Amino acid sequence: MRVAELAVRFGCEIVGDPETRVTAVATLEKAGELDISFLANAKYRSLLKTSRAGAVILSAADAPDCATTALVHKNPYEIYARVAAMLHPQPKMRAGIDAMASVSAQATISQSASIAAAVVIADGVQIGERCVIGPGCVIGRDVHIEDDTRLVANVTLCHGVSIGKRCVLHPGAVIGADGFGIANTDDGWIKVPQLGGVRIGDDVEIGASTTIDRGAIDDTVVGNGVKLDNQIQVAHNVHIGDHTVIAACTGISGSTRIGKRCMIGGAVGFVGHLDICDDVVVTGQTMVNRSITVPGMYSSALPMDEARRWRRNSARFRKLDELAKRLGQLEKDLKANR
Amino acid sequence: MRVAELAVRFGCEIVGDPETRVTAVATLEKAGELDISFLANAKYRSLLKTSRAGAVILSAADAPDCATTALVHKNPYEIYARVAAMLHPQPKMRAGIDAMASVSAQATISQSASIAAAVVIADGVQIGERCVIGPGCVIGRDVHIEDDTRLVANVTLCHGVSIGKRCVLHPGAVIGADGFGIANTDDGWIKVPQLGGVRIGDDVEIGASTTIDRGAIDDTVVGNGVKLDNQIQVAHNVHIGDHTVIAACTGISGSTRIGKRCMIGGAVGFVGHLDICDDVVVTGQTMVNRSITVPGMYSSALPMDEARRWRRNSARFRKLDELAKRLGQLEKDLKANR
Amino acid sequence: MRVAELAVRFGCEIVGDPETRVTAVATLEKAGELDISFLANAKYRSLLKTSRAGAVILSAADAPDCATTALVHKNPYEIYARVAAMLHPQPKMRAGIDAMASVSAQATISQSASIAAAVVIADGVQIGERCVIGPGCVIGRDVHIEDDTRLVANVTLCHGVSIGKRCVLHPGAVIGADGFGIANTDDGWIKVPQLGGVRIGDDVEIGASTTIDRGAIDDTVVGNGVKLDNQIQVAHNVHIGDHTVIAACTGISGSTRIGKRCMIGGAVGFVGHLDICDDVVVTGQTMVNRSITVPGMYSSALPMDEARRWRRNSARFRKLDELAKRLGQLEKDLKANR
Repeated sequence: MRVAELAVRFGCEIVGDPETRVTAVATLEKAGELDISFLANAKYRSLLKTSRAGAVILSAADAPDCATTALVHKNPYEIYARVAAMLHPQPKMRAGIDAMASVSAQATISQSASIAAAVVIADGVQIGERCVIGPGCVIGRDVHIEDDTRLVANVTLCHGVSIGKRCVLHPGAVIGADGFGIANTDDGWIKVPQLGGVRIGDDVEIGASTTIDRGAIDDTVVGNGVKLDNQIQVAHNVHIGDHTVIAACTGISGSTRIGKRCMIGGAVGFVGHLDICDDVVVTGQTMVNRSITVPGMYSSALPMDEARRWRRNSARFRKLDELAKRLGQLEKDLKANR
Repeated sequence: MRVAELAVRFGCEIVGDPETRVTAVATLEKAGELDISFLANAKYRSLLKTSRAGAVILSAADAPDCATTALVHKNPYEIYARVAAMLHPQPKMRAGIDAMASVSAQATISQSASIAAAVVIADGVQIGERCVIGPGCVIGRDVHIEDDTRLVANVTLCHGVSIGKRCVLHPGAVIGADGFGIANTDDGWIKVPQLGGVRIGDDVEIGASTTIDRGAIDDTVVGNGVKLDNQIQVAHNVHIGDHTVIAACTGISGSTRIGKRCMIGGAVGFVGHLDICDDVVVTGQTMVNRSITVPGMYSSALPMDEARRWRRNSARFRKLDELAKRLGQLEKDLKANR
Repeated sequence: MRVAELAVRFGCEIVGDPETRVTAVATLEKAGELDISFLANAKYRSLLKTSRAGAVILSAADAPDCATTALVHKNPYEIYARVAAMLHPQPKMRAGIDAMASVSAQATISQSASIAAAVVIADGVQIGERCVIGPGCVIGRDVHIEDDTRLVANVTLCHGVSIGKRCVLHPGAVIGADGFGIANTDDGWIKVPQLGGVRIGDDVEIGASTTIDRGAIDDTVVGNGVKLDNQIQVAHNVHIGDHTVIAACTGISGSTRIGKRCMIGGAVGFVGHLDICDDVVVTGQTMVNRSITVPGMYSSALPMDEARRWRRNSARFRKLDELAKRLGQLEKDLKANR
């Protein structure tokens, strides 16, 4: 691929030789002359001088430091993503149903879809054009999957789940398991039937072993363009707004609604029945214990410390209220003495 | 179903028309005249006036506000659960073994059990009456599953695990993987064989991607009526007492014993070798680092704050011990000055 | 097995009858005369007097308290692990490919390997001698697995992953799913292709539902002898040094490098792009938010407290900075008054 073609296709300016040819992407350190690399983080700028990359995607500010052909764009990481997708396309899967898949006669599978071995598809399922259902996936009755969605492998979709277009679901993801609904009775806890479904929008990515429970009565909803990392737990009746991204190991309790374009860090915990407005950023390991009405950044985890000092400080924490009262008393005494 | 029949069956009082017919459950907002709804949370009481539900299950205190037929009971959520289970029964699975299941000739499967495609069942397995083993489940040698238990799909039971009656295991659950037993040697860490099993009681529900490890020598034990949400980690030799419920993402380290009727929040972490007495409540994200001998409520996570203020406060935390000492010094100085 | 043989094989000293025969391991409480037990934790020393074990592995210091035949060694837990592995060997799996496995003709499977039912193996896969691939495992194209490695069941290895010798991967583990690479654009977040692989060393154990993502460009790397517990999340381009052990539910963000021989507690969260030196210990639930250059122990989680006191203290925490300022002001005032 000539750099000139990339520049035209992705709207970049070229500084250097437009005839440079690249065939693959690589990091600045490891790139050779047929590789294209990128610089999106100022921290790595020093590598520009020594990189042997055939071309580098970078911002105008970094272009002067580039020893080789530069593709200049205001968002180099975006252009890198698009170039990488073009140079390294997803391998085409053969259309058709593997002989070792178990597909209900009452399911409707597009001719262009690819259904791998050890897949089990129940009655009433609809699978769109060019979908790829990887090995070991289980798709319950009446699930609808729209065009160009890919289930990598060992994904479980329980009955009635709907998935939009161009989604990617990674191995171990479980969509539509029963929500955790239990009622306390004289005979102990009894199960509350979970009768809602899960609706996933278009262009959603769902990480490995992420779980999204079906609603109790109404549906659990994941908006368009949402990106979920691995091992996230989404409880029943949660709503996640369009283009919100969530890092790994975060848990969202039942009926909480998260707005659009939020960025949620890893291992965050949301209490149930909250409303989080659009454009909120939550840093890692925060306990979100109340609704958020003002866009901005929120936190609650304590930073790491050397263990001995941490022990002394955390012991004091257990008496923080008493400490504050002693301070108040001192202030009062001093005032009285004056 | 006539409301009068529901009232008789579940011991409710009727306020309104006993001939009202309902066919499904729905939320107060969305219910139509053939739906039955419920009110269990005072927060939603205002919806009673506008709801178009055919009937509503609620407490005596809420009955006067109900514009439609009311089914009155002291525990409306329990009655809702029972009515919902009756109106929306689990679909019956066809008994028998799917042609695409792999079942050992040395396994004993009840005639009334249903074994789906892509299931693998090893030697010595016993599966009780009316059990449902969903697609993709793997059941290791000598596993015993009692009557009416359901493995939804892609559940893994390792060798020797025993599961009681009427349990539900959701997709991705792994029961009986090796506990994390390692011994430090001059050659690095070596594996300690995990020779115990896992015993699960009756009426237990186990959430998606929850993992319960086998014991090191003796068994890991989960009592009757225990309800576990998704992505919970239960380490080797843990004991969980009857009717304890645990929310998602909680982790319990090895050999810890949790009592009966406890309620454990989400993302709680238990250190190993603890004893937690009956009737303990632990709030979300708590680090349980010592045994609990007194029933009550326990916590440790800091609540969320706006990030700038949080940064200032957490920076101070690192010097909390010093702060406390300075306060003590001031108090001493003042005393001396008097 | 005669105790004398164990002593010779594992370099122990015998106190008592070398002709004692043992056939199984058991705990000190439950052992009978044909069982061998061990004492590695001083807390259980009192059980020595009443144990009915045929023999006990213990340290020289504990030998005088032992009422039965003692096998004395400086590291009794190591010897217990080795004896247990000898008395309770992993059952041999029959070599060969199950009729209900789906194995590509372009895969190379050793004659001595065992491939179970419902396994799916893609083109270009290489599986070494005596490997065991349990039921439901999915192995993507060009995966290499070296000799004596065992995938218990329902493990997913995505394309291009390599696994060393003598590894054990527990059910639900997912190796090589796409890293969480997304670029923010005017059209919302777009996927950044994840083009690297995952390289796992020799003698690695990977727990149930643990996820290790493939690298973005270069590989994610797990060193030799690393032991990972359940439900751990390892993001793209993380490096974990040889002989490091990590407890359950820990998450490691992208590009973080952890040194050799580290011991990481449960539910720890690592921010991305950190460097953690060798021989670091991190206690449970810590937020590791900066690099560590000095070996030692690090922490950040607050210990549990009774909920009412905790609420008072955590409310004060929100004003800790103000508290500190008030203290500083008092000190200044007092100085001025003198």
